[in-house]
Order: sequence, then C-alpha cells, then structure tokens
Amino acid sequence: MPRLDPRDRKTTEKIERLAEGVLRAVKGGRNPFVEIPVRSLANVRFDEKRRLIQLGSQRQRRYFFNVAMARKFMQTFLVSDACKELVESGKTTSIRDLYYMTKHTIGETRQNTFEEQDESDPIIEDLEVAIDALREELHLFASRKGTMVGPITIRDSGDTIDLRRMGSGGWGVPSIVEENVIEFGRHEAKYVLLVEKDAVWSRFNEDRFWKRQSCIIVHGGGQPPRGVRRLVRRLNAELKLPVYVLVDNDPWGFYIYSVVKQGSINLAYESMRMAVPDARFVGLSSFDKSAFRLPPNVAIKMDDGDVSRARQMLAYPWFKARQWQREIQEMIDSGVKYELEALSRRGISFITEEYLPKKLRDREWLE
Amino acid sequence: MPRLDPRDRKTTEKIERLAEGVLRAVKGGRNPFVEIPVRSLANVRFDEKRRLIQLGSQRQRRYFFNVAMARKFMQTFLVSDACKELVESGKTTSIRDLYYMTKHTIGETRQNTFEEQDESDPIIEDLEVAIDALREELHLFASRKGTMVGPITIRDSGDTIDLRRMGSGGWGVPSIVEENVIEFGRHEAKYVLLVEKDAVWSRFNEDRFWKRQSCIIVHGGGQPPRGVRRLVRRLNAELKLPVYVLVDNDPWGFYIYSVVKQGSINLAYESMRMAVPDARFVGLSSFDKSAFRLPPNVAIKMDDGDVSRARQMLAYPWFKARQWQREIQEMIDSGVKYELEALSRRGISFITEEYLPKKLRDREWLE
Repeated sequence: MPRLDPRDRKTTEKIERLAEGVLRAVKGGRNPFVEIPVRSLANVRFDEKRRLIQLGSQRQRRYFFNVAMARKFMQTFLVSDACKELVESGKTTSIRDLYYMTKHTIGETRQNTFEEQDESDPIIEDLEVAIDALREELHLFASRKGTMVGPITIRDSGDTIDLRRMGSGGWGVPSIVEENVIEFGRHEAKYVLLVEKDAVWSRFNEDRFWKRQSCIIVHGGGQPPRGVRRLVRRLNAELKLPVYVLVDNDPWGFYIYSVVKQGSINLAYESMRMAVPDARFVGLSSFDKSAFRLPPNVAIKMDDGDVSRARQMLAYPWFKARQWQREIQEMIDSGVKYELEALSRRGISFITEEYLPKKLRDREWLE
Repeated sequence: MPRLDPRDRKTTEKIERLAEGVLRAVKGGRNPFVEIPVRSLANVRFDEKRRLIQLGSQRQRRYFFNVAMARKFMQTFLVSDACKELVESGKTTSIRDLYYMTKHTIGETRQNTFEEQDESDPIIEDLEVAIDALREELHLFASRKGTMVGPITIRDSGDTIDLRRMGSGGWGVPSIVEENVIEFGRHEAKYVLLVEKDAVWSRFNEDRFWKRQSCIIVHGGGQPPRGVRRLVRRLNAELKLPVYVLVDNDPWGFYIYSVVKQGSINLAYESMRMAVPDARFVGLSSFDKSAFRLPPNVAIKMDDGDVSRARQMLAYPWFKARQWQREIQEMIDSGVKYELEALSRRGISFITEEYLPKKLRDREWLE
C-alpha cells in the first residue's frame, strides 16, 4: 500500500473510527448505530453572522437491529469500505462508478445491495456528514465543467502549470481540488472573476482581460460544479483574493450567485468549505438596462416560472438587504430579464472594455 | 485594421464576393439572389466510398425582390456583415452573441431584424454552405466541453502547451481549433482515444493510461462538441493517428460514434471537415457482457425509446455491415444496455488495465 499523505490518513482514520464504534457495540452486546446529522430542510438555517447556509444540530441514529434501518446501515458500511479502498489505493472515482463498485447481489437471494444510484448517493452524503469529510476527501469526484486562466502558477498532481500560457483553451478545472492535489504557486492576481457562461468567459479570455486587469477568470458552464466552487473558495480563503460573480440578469443567475456566496440548502453541510460569503455580485443588475442603455429589443419577457422564482427570492433571508430587495423587485416590476450576451448589442467587447471596468471602478456591486 | 492571416483573408474575400454578386445584379437591373445548397433530408446522402454523410447537389436561390424571401435575404447580409467584422477585428464570438449583435429594430417600425436566435442560427448555416466556410472560419464558436491530455505539445494562440503536464485537470479544448489557432508540435502519440464521458476520461488520466500507451485521450462531455470533433479529425488527418472511440453500450453511445465517424444528417455539409471515416469503435460492445463476465445486475433494461432507436439504426446505411447488424441485433435481443462504468464492477481500473488493452491487442473493434 502506498504511503498516505496526512490528509488521506485522516480520512481513513475517520472511517475506521466509525467502524470501530460499531464493532465495540456488537462486542458489548449493544445494538450498533451510526449517528448522522439530519439533512432535511427543518435542520437547515442561515447563519446571519457567518453569512452561510448551515446544518443545524439535529442528529439521528441509524441502528443495525431495526428492520427499517438495517438496509441503510449495511449500505453505509459498503460505501465506507469502498471509499477507504479508494483512499488507500490513491485513486479517485465518480459517484456513478461507486454505485457500480458496491452493487452486489446478496448471497443466494435476488436482493441487490443497491438497486439504483439514487440509493447510493444519499448514503455518500450520510457518510460525508457522519465523519465530517468532504466528498472529495473520500476520493469521489463530480462532473467536471469549467475552465480557468490567469496570472497564477499552480501545481496539479505534480505538474507545474502556468495559467498565463493556456491559449484559447484554458486549464480544465478538475472536480477534486483539495490541497493535496492542487497547490497554488506564484501569482500576481488581484481578484477572481467567476463568470456564469463559457461563451462569455471566452470573450474575457480572448480579450486578455485577465492580463490587463491582473485577475483570474473562471467559468462553471452554468451552475458551477463542486470543483470550481471549492477552488474559488480556496483562492479567496488562502490567497485573500476578492471574488466577483458575473451572471445573467434572471432568477437563475441570482441563484447561481447565491449558491457561490452562501451555499445551498441541499448541501448545507458543505457550505463551510464550499461557500464564499464575501463574494460580490457585479451584474447583470436589473438597473443595468438604463445605466448601460440596452435597447428594449434585447430584453426577454419573464415567464410565470421566472416571476414566481423571483418572488420566492424576496423572502430568502440572504436576500433581505435593502439593495437586494430593490434589485429583485425591479426585475419583477419590469417583467423582463437580460442575458450577459445582450451587452454585445453595444459592441462585441463592450463587456470587457466598458461594462465590467466601470462596475469595478465605481464599486457598483451588491454583497 | 490588423493584417489578416491568409485563412482569414480568404474568408473575408468569400463574403465580399457574395456581396459583390448582389451589387452587380442590382446595377445590371436584375433581381439579386444568393445561391444556397439545400439543407434538407432529401438532399443528404451517404457516400459509400468516402464513408461520409454529405449534402447532395440541389441548390436554391434566395431572391431579394420576393416577398417570401426578402427578409431572409436581408438577414443573410446582416450576418455576413457581422462575420466579416469579426474576422477583420480578429475576434470570435458565440452564435448567441451574434444574434444580439445583429438584432436591430428596423427604422421607425416595430419590426426586428431577428425575433429570436432560431431565426439567426439557420442563416449562419446558410452562409456556411453558401460560401463554403466552416462556422469556425466565420469566427463563430459553439459551446466548449471536453478536455485533452497526452504526449503532444501544441501551440494555442501563441502559447506553447505541453499536454504531458496538465495534472488532473487537462487542457480545455476550445471551440475553434483551426490551423491558425491550434498548431501541433512535437509528439510521441500512437493513437487518439475519444471517450464519451468525462468521469471515465478522469479514470484514464488518473491511471496515466496516455503515458503507458503513448496516446492522446480526449472526452467530449457526452456528444462531443464541434471543437473536439474537429480537433480529433485534424489529429487523424494531419498526424495520421488512428482514432478509437469508447462509448456506452446503448443507442446513444452508438449514435455518438456514428457522428464522429461519418458526420450527422443535420450538419451534412460539414462532414468533409468534421468526420473521421476510419474511426474505430472499441466498445462497449453488446458482446462484452459475456467476454468480460459482467454480472447481470449491472445491466440496465432498455426502454421503448431505446429499442425503437436501435431498430432505426439497423436501417442506417452506415450500419449495414454484417458485424454492426449483429452488434445492434444483440442489443435488441438482450433487451439490456450497459454503461462504461459497469466495468468498474470488475475493479476500479479494470477498464484501463484489462479491458481496453485487451481490445486493442486483439484488434477487437468495429469499423
């Protein structure tokens, strides 16, 4: 077995402790259980001070000798065992793969350990919260989308990569970007710009915006995947780089911003290590249509779904600040939304040469 | 205006010739027209010898003085003009952006030049076939997904990038990969492996398969985008590298393979420069379940849509070869499909250490 780095050793130790607790209970004649924080909406709250969506303190016990719980109990240990094997072999894999790896037919029965992946995925989340380890620390990766360039050198799995020399392509951000995989080297970046859309990112890259402005530019191909969120969080926390988020002017764009900033309800237990509470929204704002003289024919009419999502947002505690209420209300009142590409009506490089520089110069952002 | 490279100059000249033809007609008192190859199913055929799906020879004329055609005529020139501007300014953009750039309200009317992008996209395709230029030569890009690593050095927009040192991330394949953007440098690659799924690609990258086997590995995040297809085509045509395609064992996987190999019906006019007629299918084959002893519980039941798509495929001229008929018939008869990840049931690195090496050693592929 290869020598484990300290981080991986910590993860395997956590899994072992979980198993040892169960063994002790069995030996002591007690009903073994695993204690798991409850991941339901009722146990999620917005921490106003830290500005993070977090799990509350409710916990549940999953017992082995309990008809309703025994199957999940068994599954928890199958997944734990597979993850321990992954960590110890220095390999990583997808949650789809893990499902196949742990899918067996039990003995002579026609029962499978897992019927579908929708049975194994929640077990992974259970394990994450039970032992307080990110999925990435269990060596499980999510889908990869998103590319990055900028004035920074990184080390990725032993390779030194200069993100100043990535041409038109950029470095594909992997899903696992923990410290033992990705290290930050020399950099001259002053901030990070996270763009919603790959096409808009391409405009920023082609115009060498990152060079002119000394910033790191990254996109997440829509809603940023875990790897991009975690990497942006690390750039913010470790290199103290401010993070600016540039999204469409629609409820989905605002949602993307809010997940980057304070995490999501579904993955509340990960906000601590994925969210960037001081991320700043630089647009598109609902007031940009007049500030930047966008012609009415580039507006898109909001449909009923858009309007009801925007109304819901008015009630979210993280959008309670006066300027956010004003922002969302303006979108609802106007009845229209705008894509980032609408700025191209003012010129192909308007977004990189005028729009964003002005926003940053005038400190025209929301927090 | 920056000096244009020969390729860009050729494109602008083609656009100018189109416009000049119209001007000459007007001056001569004739009704100006643009001649455009017909892009309908009736004008698409499979060229058995070249093994490509291609456009036939039917052409249509779009006249200016014709109530039904005038709007499209005007749009064709708006798009041509915007593309000429793009090429001359050395910039590229998305087809979404182009829609916004060319959307105007006409004079004092409430008429827009384009109402929605679904009006401008076909005009772009018209222009492509009318002047015989790839969309990429018009400086228009599509969405970017897909990453690549392997024993090759490339130059991308002036940056030299060693794809042997891309860590876990890889180089994000851009959408425009024409010779004036991407140049191939020194390489030791013996072949190209195109994998359907990013998660499976990550397995090949993590296991350093590309190093052990001296090959370039690339994925397209599902159906490969234009940039990946065009790049694989260039690697095949210019560096004479064989191309192997690894996809799920389902009708969608077979379809992905067939588009890579002989092009698609929708974009038949581009097959000549996008398709790889000698691409080889290395799996998953419908016979792999027995050859590689996959347990029955990793099979997925085909639904009615799968079965009818597979039946349609039996009739495609490019699947007429005996071995393909046998392959597809076996899928239909068994009623099940398999994902690439199902191989992980045999071990996490089974696919990179046993499955694919054996397939290549035994020349177990379909063409």
